[in-house]
Amino acid sequence: MKLFGAIEAGGTKFVCLVGTDPQHVQEESRFPTTTPAETLSQVVEFFKRAASGRNLISIGIGCFGPLDLDQQSPTFGSITSTPKPGWANTRILTMLQNALHVPVAIDTDVNAAALAEYTWGAAQNVDSCIYLTIGTGIGGGGIINNAPLHGLVHPEMGHIRLPHDRQTDPFEGICPFHGDCFEGLACGPALQKRWGQPAETLPENHPAWELEAHYIALALCDYICTLSPKRIILGGGVMQKQSLFPLIRKNVLQSLNGYVQSPEILENIDEYIQPPALGSRAGVLGALALAQFGWENS
Amino acid sequence: MKLFGAIEAGGTKFVCLVGTDPQHVQEESRFPTTTPAETLSQVVEFFKRAASGRNLISIGIGCFGPLDLDQQSPTFGSITSTPKPGWANTRILTMLQNALHVPVAIDTDVNAAALAEYTWGAAQNVDSCIYLTIGTGIGGGGIINNAPLHGLVHPEMGHIRLPHDRQTDPFEGICPFHGDCFEGLACGPALQKRWGQPAETLPENHPAWELEAHYIALALCDYICTLSPKRIILGGGVMQKQSLFPLIRKNVLQSLNGYVQSPEILENIDEYIQPPALGSRAGVLGALALAQFGWENS
Repeated sequence: MKLFGAIEAGGTKFVCLVGTDPQHVQEESRFPTTTPAETLSQVVEFFKRAASGRNLISIGIGCFGPLDLDQQSPTFGSITSTPKPGWANTRILTMLQNALHVPVAIDTDVNAAALAEYTWGAAQNVDSCIYLTIGTGIGGGGIINNAPLHGLVHPEMGHIRLPHDRQTDPFEGICPFHGDCFEGLACGPALQKRWGQPAETLPENHPAWELEAHYIALALCDYICTLSPKRIILGGGVMQKQSLFPLIRKNVLQSLNGYVQSPEILENIDEYIQPPALGSRAGVLGALALAQFGWENS
Repeated sequence: MKLFGAIEAGGTKFVCLVGTDPQHVQEESRFPTTTPAETLSQVVEFFKRAASGRNLISIGIGCFGPLDLDQQSPTFGSITSTPKPGWANTRILTMLQNALHVPVAIDTDVNAAALAEYTWGAAQNVDSCIYLTIGTGIGGGGIINNAPLHGLVHPEMGHIRLPHDRQTDPFEGICPFHGDCFEGLACGPALQKRWGQPAETLPENHPAWELEAHYIALALCDYICTLSPKRIILGGGVMQKQSLFPLIRKNVLQSLNGYVQSPEILENIDEYIQPPALGSRAGVLGALALAQFGWENS
């Protein structure tokens, strides 16, 4: 029986599993992210045990970044300049490939999540999508022309600049690079700083949510005009607030103002902009999809 | 001998040619865009004559839009809601395919130009690029994962929203849909309206150019964060002003503020952001590349 391996490599925890699809997961394990040496040993142990006597074809990693994803680069598959102590310049792909002797595919956590939703979730009936996570930071991944979106480095969708009316919202933003870029204005810590309390404690009728929906919608309109994705999936801690979805959809329609003549947007926006169908499993299942995608395309 | 046909279908003129690449163009003709009946008859006549006794494999059209590019749609390959008199709902692909009995590929004029630069021009050594035209309007096309960028409709890169400081620039913008979107602030007619004279008559040291470079750079930063293209090519009437290029490059570096850690941007921005190598030939040569691309991928 053919099995694939998956690693969701996050800043606080790692999730590993072997299986073939969301309904067929043979084994799964999770442990906190400590040092690269300790955490990657646990990964290796897990796969040696879980794959024992089975045909493990390949492993996919959906990894926190930034990553070196340039296949021509001598450090391809490394975590590069992360502020996470000990993890900068960790050659995660090479280390696992050498220890486990199977092909390993790697991509960003958000590209992996996009691939999971495209393979088994909210975007499985379309050929392009973007996945945006809005939480501690804001990041985005995408599937374009049936493959994960890469490019020069990888997208940094959270750092686009948006109109910011300082009369209505004098908050300066918290991005150390750009101040009031999208992430600087709209990530969870920005909400907390602007309103003086954690996002999840803000009441339903607080003006924070209308403003948050306004910024998210402006960003989505920019992605729609630039990438024209066939579906937009919004995950992450801030998006746990379900009542944001109708506000965002209304703001997107207002902001596009009928310009993009697509029935998917004009008539079917509840499906066009939606939460991840795979919920918090999108990350590790994305790594599983990546293992299969990498294997099929190698 | 195998030949390909190309049609640059513009709002004011059509250019047709047969050949194999920029160095091997057998015949070429151009005529003004009048009615669909008259203009498309001229196209058909040109190809019947030019292809006579030769092996015409396929034809590509780089077309003004908006276009229906959904292959599942019954009106695939039509010009849809253009304000150009007589041309709305013109089934240009079907009409030419029926008249000429060869496969016809169609894409937007800007995707065609991007494909030309990717095949023979400024982006031939990279696997992704965007092509932006800044003139009467602003439009963008791109090659991502080695194929033209489509999606829901097609990108409308000119209509992204940018930070607009009304203290520095009280101009309201001229986009009938969005007011001060990128196109509304920075296309040729916006320059003319803001400064009271045509862009090309504004002197070199006029503050118009610094402001124009500022908006173009903000837009490029948004595309870089969203698409991470490996090259950016800027064409169109406004970009005839060569001195805009260094201003734009300087503003892009300032605005990204070191966040995108890529030597292509940080060390090599003169190559990263450049004019079309094929100049005004990018359109028709893009249609030629499209004929070959469509043929290879069909």
